[in-house]
Amino acid sequence: MTDFRGVIPPVVVAEHEDGTFDVQSYQRGLDRMIQAGVHGVFALGSSGEGAFATPSRREEILRATNEVVAGRVPVLAGVIDTQTDRVLEHVRQAEQIGVDGIVATAPFYALGGMAQVENHFRAIAAATELPLFAYDIPVCVHVKLPPALLMRLGQDGVLAGVKDSSGDDVSFRFLLQDNERAGHPLSLLTGHEVVVDGAYLGGADGSVPGLANVDPAGYVRQWNAYQAGDWETVRKEQDRLSDLMRIVMVPSSTTGFGAGVGAFKTALKVLGIFESNQMPTPVSQLTAEEEEGIAQVLRHVGLLG
Amino acid sequence: MTDFRGVIPPVVVAEHEDGTFDVQSYQRGLDRMIQAGVHGVFALGSSGEGAFATPSRREEILRATNEVVAGRVPVLAGVIDTQTDRVLEHVRQAEQIGVDGIVATAPFYALGGMAQVENHFRAIAAATELPLFAYDIPVCVHVKLPPALLMRLGQDGVLAGVKDSSGDDVSFRFLLQDNERAGHPLSLLTGHEVVVDGAYLGGADGSVPGLANVDPAGYVRQWNAYQAGDWETVRKEQDRLSDLMRIVMVPSSTTGFGAGVGAFKTALKVLGIFESNQMPTPVSQLTAEEEEGIAQVLRHVGLLG
Amino acid sequence: MTDFRGVIPPVVVAEHEDGTFDVQSYQRGLDRMIQAGVHGVFALGSSGEGAFATPSRREEILRATNEVVAGRVPVLAGVIDTQTDRVLEHVRQAEQIGVDGIVATAPFYALGGMAQVENHFRAIAAATELPLFAYDIPVCVHVKLPPALLMRLGQDGVLAGVKDSSGDDVSFRFLLQDNERAGHPLSLLTGHEVVVDGAYLGGADGSVPGLANVDPAGYVRQWNAYQAGDWETVRKEQDRLSDLMRIVMVPSSTTGFGAGVGAFKTALKVLGIFESNQMPTPVSQLTAEEEEGIAQVLRHVGLLG
Amino acid sequence: MTDFRGVIPPVVVAEHEDGTFDVQSYQRGLDRMIQAGVHGVFALGSSGEGAFATPSRREEILRATNEVVAGRVPVLAGVIDTQTDRVLEHVRQAEQIGVDGIVATAPFYALGGMAQVENHFRAIAAATELPLFAYDIPVCVHVKLPPALLMRLGQDGVLAGVKDSSGDDVSFRFLLQDNERAGHPLSLLTGHEVVVDGAYLGGADGSVPGLANVDPAGYVRQWNAYQAGDWETVRKEQDRLSDLMRIVMVPSSTTGFGAGVGAFKTALKVLGIFESNQMPTPVSQLTAEEEEGIAQVLRHVGLLG
Repeated sequence: MTDFRGVIPPVVVAEHEDGTFDVQSYQRGLDRMIQAGVHGVFALGSSGEGAFATPSRREEILRATNEVVAGRVPVLAGVIDTQTDRVLEHVRQAEQIGVDGIVATAPFYALGGMAQVENHFRAIAAATELPLFAYDIPVCVHVKLPPALLMRLGQDGVLAGVKDSSGDDVSFRFLLQDNERAGHPLSLLTGHEVVVDGAYLGGADGSVPGLANVDPAGYVRQWNAYQAGDWETVRKEQDRLSDLMRIVMVPSSTTGFGAGVGAFKTALKVLGIFESNQMPTPVSQLTAEEEEGIAQVLRHVGLLG
Repeated sequence: MTDFRGVIPPVVVAEHEDGTFDVQSYQRGLDRMIQAGVHGVFALGSSGEGAFATPSRREEILRATNEVVAGRVPVLAGVIDTQTDRVLEHVRQAEQIGVDGIVATAPFYALGGMAQVENHFRAIAAATELPLFAYDIPVCVHVKLPPALLMRLGQDGVLAGVKDSSGDDVSFRFLLQDNERAGHPLSLLTGHEVVVDGAYLGGADGSVPGLANVDPAGYVRQWNAYQAGDWETVRKEQDRLSDLMRIVMVPSSTTGFGAGVGAFKTALKVLGIFESNQMPTPVSQLTAEEEEGIAQVLRHVGLLG
Repeated sequence: MTDFRGVIPPVVVAEHEDGTFDVQSYQRGLDRMIQAGVHGVFALGSSGEGAFATPSRREEILRATNEVVAGRVPVLAGVIDTQTDRVLEHVRQAEQIGVDGIVATAPFYALGGMAQVENHFRAIAAATELPLFAYDIPVCVHVKLPPALLMRLGQDGVLAGVKDSSGDDVSFRFLLQDNERAGHPLSLLTGHEVVVDGAYLGGADGSVPGLANVDPAGYVRQWNAYQAGDWETVRKEQDRLSDLMRIVMVPSSTTGFGAGVGAFKTALKVLGIFESNQMPTPVSQLTAEEEEGIAQVLRHVGLLG
Repeated sequence: MTDFRGVIPPVVVAEHEDGTFDVQSYQRGLDRMIQAGVHGVFALGSSGEGAFATPSRREEILRATNEVVAGRVPVLAGVIDTQTDRVLEHVRQAEQIGVDGIVATAPFYALGGMAQVENHFRAIAAATELPLFAYDIPVCVHVKLPPALLMRLGQDGVLAGVKDSSGDDVSFRFLLQDNERAGHPLSLLTGHEVVVDGAYLGGADGSVPGLANVDPAGYVRQWNAYQAGDWETVRKEQDRLSDLMRIVMVPSSTTGFGAGVGAFKTALKVLGIFESNQMPTPVSQLTAEEEEGIAQVLRHVGLLG
C-alpha cells in the first residue's frame, strides 16, 4: 500500500455535542468516500484535527480509520507537532496502530531556519520505515518549504512525497518540473480544492482536498477525466467544485479552521452523514443561520434536493 | 482600441549605462513583441519601472511606446503611485500623450483599509474617460483586492478589468466565476508567467507576462492553443516557458525586482535586443557570471543558438 | 542650523474642505509649536503627507514652513519616495526652497534587499550637501533598517541621524549603545509618542512625536525634565501624553494614517487651530461623532475646558 | 505563593549530549538564580522548551524544579500548546506535580480569531484553581493579544497576569495604564531583556528575562533600584545587561530559538554551570567558535575573568 496517487482526502473528524469522538459519523463519512472511489485517505491532517488531538484522541481516530478502511486504500497519518521528539512520539503511535505512511510539517512555534527544517525531516525518516510526506503549509507553520530542499530530500530517500498547501502555485509548478526531471522520486499532491485542475495540468500526482469529504464523487470524476486527458471535463468538474467550495465563505461567526472545517462538518451534517457539526474547543460550531446558508450552496450545486 | 484580451506584456525598459533612456533598445523589444503577435502592451507597469520613473522619464517612455506601436495594438499605461492626487497627475499625463487604458494599484505606503481602496479607484475613474484596470499586487502594495470589491467596481463601471499579480490563484478562480455569472463586466488578466495555463483553464481573458519580453512567440502560441481548446499544447508551451522562467533564479547578487526584471533585461541583452542590462538606481545590474547563467537557460530552451 | 536635538515634531498638514492647502491653519499650528519651545520641525514626513503630496503641494508646504519658522529652529524636510531618482527630484526641490536637513526612507514598492537600501542612502548623500536622516519605518516600507547598517552609514558620514519609527525598542536600544561607543556620529530620534520616556532613559537625542502637534508644551516639559535628570517628571508627563494619545483609538470609520493623522487634525480643529479636519483623497475625514470622542479625551487630559 | 512580582526568569533547560535531561546542571542554574534573589521562576516557557517537551520530559523538568526551589519562591509552569484540550492535559500534570501558577499562550497552528482566543483562556481558567497568566508572544503564535481583551479577562478573574513578549512597547504602556485605572487586577511582566528599564518606568510589576539565567544578580540589582526610585542605577544596570545580551548576536550557524537559547546555554556552559550546551532536536548546538565569541562578551561585561 505505497502507491500514493489520485484523490486522497484529509478526513474530517466527527464529534458529539459533548466533545467526545463520534465514531459512527466519522466512519460513515470515511466509508462514503472510499465507496465513491477515492484512492487513499489522510487521517489527522490539519482538517483532521491532527494538530489539536490529544494522544488518546489520536488513537481513537487512527483505530476507527483502520477499522473502516480495512485495507481498501492506503492510509496516511498526520504526525504534526512543534518539534522532532514530539513528532516521533506520534510516529511510534502510528506504527503501533498501523498506517501506510506519515505526513509531517516543518517544526513550528519557535523553531525555524532551513537547517533545522532539514534536520527535522531527516531525523523523522531515520526513525521509521514508513514512507514520509512533507506537508508544506506556511499559513500554519510560517515557513515555506523550498523546492530545492524537497527535491534533495526526495532524491536522498528521506521523503516519499509532498502535500502542497502552500498556496504558491508557481513554486509547485517548478517542483513538478524538477521532480519529473529527477526521475519522479516524489509523489506530489495538491491540497488546494479550488485549483486542482491547474495542478493536474501541471502534472500533479494527486490531490488532498478537504472538500472531498463533502463531494468525493466529484473529485473522483475529475481525476478520471485527468487520466483520460479530457480537460474540458476536468475544468467543468472544477467549476462545480469551486462553486461548492463557497460553503467556506458562508460563516461570519468564526474564521480560519473554524470557518473552513466548520463548513465541511456542517455540510456533512446537512447531508445526513454527521450527527453534529461540533468543533473542538475553543472553536464554536457554526450557527443555525450559517447552516442554512451552507444548505443553500449544497442545493445550488445539486448535492441536496 | 478597448479590447483588452490575449497576451498583453508589461514592457521592460531599456537604459543606457549612464542611466538615460535607451529608446532604440526599448522600441526594438516592443516591436519584436508586436510582430510576434501580442494583443496589447502595458507600459509603465511594475516591470516597466512605472513605480520608479520620474515624470520626464514617464513621458519619454510613453511617447516611445506610442511611436512604435502606432495603433497596431492597444496601449495600457501604469499610473501607479502612493495616493490618488499623485495618480491623477499621471493620468493627466497619459491622457495628453494618448493611451488606450490605464492601470492603477491600491494606494500604498501609509494608506489602507478597503474603504480607502474603493474611494481611490472610484476617484480615478471619475476623473478620466480612459478604461481603468485594477492592478492586484499585494507583494508591492501589501493589500489584496477582494473579489467582491472588484466585482462591485466592475458592475458599477468603475473598472474595465483586473491585472492579477496576487499569487492567489484560488481567489482568482473565484473571481473568474463571479465575473462570468455577472455578465463578464471585467477583462481578467493573469500576471503569473509560470501558471498561465491554469488561469486559461479557469477562463482568463488573457495574460500579462513579463517573460513575454523574452519569448513573446511562446505566449502567443499558447494563447492560440487556448482559443482552439488544444490543452495539450497549452500545457506543453507552459512547461517550456516555465523552464525559461528559471532565468529569474540565476541572480544571486540581488533580489526582488533587481533579480526578476534584471534577468529579463539581461536575457534581452544576450539575445541582442537590448544594448545594456542597466538597472535604475539603486539596483545593481547583473554580473557577467549571472549573464552567462542566463544565456545557458536561453540555450536550454532553444532561444539561443 | 544643524543641531538636530530635542523635540522635533512632524508637522501635520491643514487642508480646506475643497482639498486645497490651508496655509493659515498650517502656519498657526506650526507657530504654536515653536512658541511652545520645540527644537526643530519636520515637514513632509509620513504624518505631514510627504509620501502623498504632488510636487506643487510639496512646494506650497515647504514655503509656508520656512515663512513661519523664519530661522527660529532647524527645518527637516521629508524626501520620501519609492526610488532614488524620484527622491533626488525632491532633494533638488528642497535645496532650492531651502531646508536644514532631509529625511529619506528605504526605497519601497518593489525594491528591497540591504544592498539596494545602502546604495539608495549613499546615492542620496552623494548628491547633496544637506544632512541626511534615515527614516526607519517598516510599517510603511516593509523593511527594517539594521543597526549595523545605520552605524556604518553614520561612521562614513552618509547619515547625520535616524528617525526611528520601527516599533522595535530592543533594536533602538542597541543602536543607542553602538552610537555612543562609536563617538556619537548619529542623532537618534524616536518617533513613538507613547514611550518617549523609555527612549530617553536609553539616551535618545530627541523625539519626533506627531502628537506634539496637539500638545507641544507637554513634550517640551518632558524634554526639559530629561535634561535635568528628573525621571519622575519624565514618566509623569509621559503618562499624561499617553492618555492624550488615546485620541487615535477613537476613530472607527477609518484605519492607519486615516485614524492616526485624522485624530491629530481633528484635535487641532477642536482646539481651534485648524479650520477643518479634511484629509487627502482617498481618506475620509473623521465624523462628527468621532470628533466628539476626541474632544472628550482632550477634556480628560486638561487640554480643553 | 501567589505574589508574582519582581524578577521571574524563564528557566533554561540543560541536556546531556545524548539528549537526556541533565538534572544536576538544571538545578545548579536554578539554585544560583534563587540565591541571587530572583522573586520567582518560570519553568517550561519558550526558553524553557515548554513548547517542545514531551509529557515525560515535562514531568522531569517540573519535579526537578520543585525539588530545588523547595518553596523559596513561587513556581510558574508553561502550559503552551496548539489547542485547549492539549493545554488542559498539561494543566492536569502541573496540578498533580504542584505549581503556583500556569502560563498559556493563545492557541496556534490553525486556530485564530479573538473569539477563539478568549474562549481558550476562559476554558483553561474554568478548569483549574491555579492562577493563569496570558503569554503574549506573537512571534511564536502569530496573534497579538489586545489590551482590551487582557483587561476584560483580568477584571473577570480569568487572568492573574500577563507575560508580555510582544515587542510592542506602545501596547504594553497602554496596558499598564489601563490596569492601574482598573484597580490593578493583573500582574504585568515584561519579557524583553533589553528594555526592562523602560517597562519599569511605565510601572511594570516585574520582568521575565531569559538573560537572567546568565546574570540573575544584575536583574535583581535593577529591580531593587527600581523599587528605590533610583533611575540612574536602573538605566546603568540595563546598559550593562543589554551589552551582555549581545551574546545572542554571536551565533551565525543557527537562528531564532537556536541562536537565542543556544547563546544562553552556551554562556552557562562557559560559566561552568551547565555541562553542555546541547539543544533539543532538530536544533544544532552552537559551535566552538561561537562559544569563544560568547566568552568574549562575558569577559567584556565582567562575568568571566
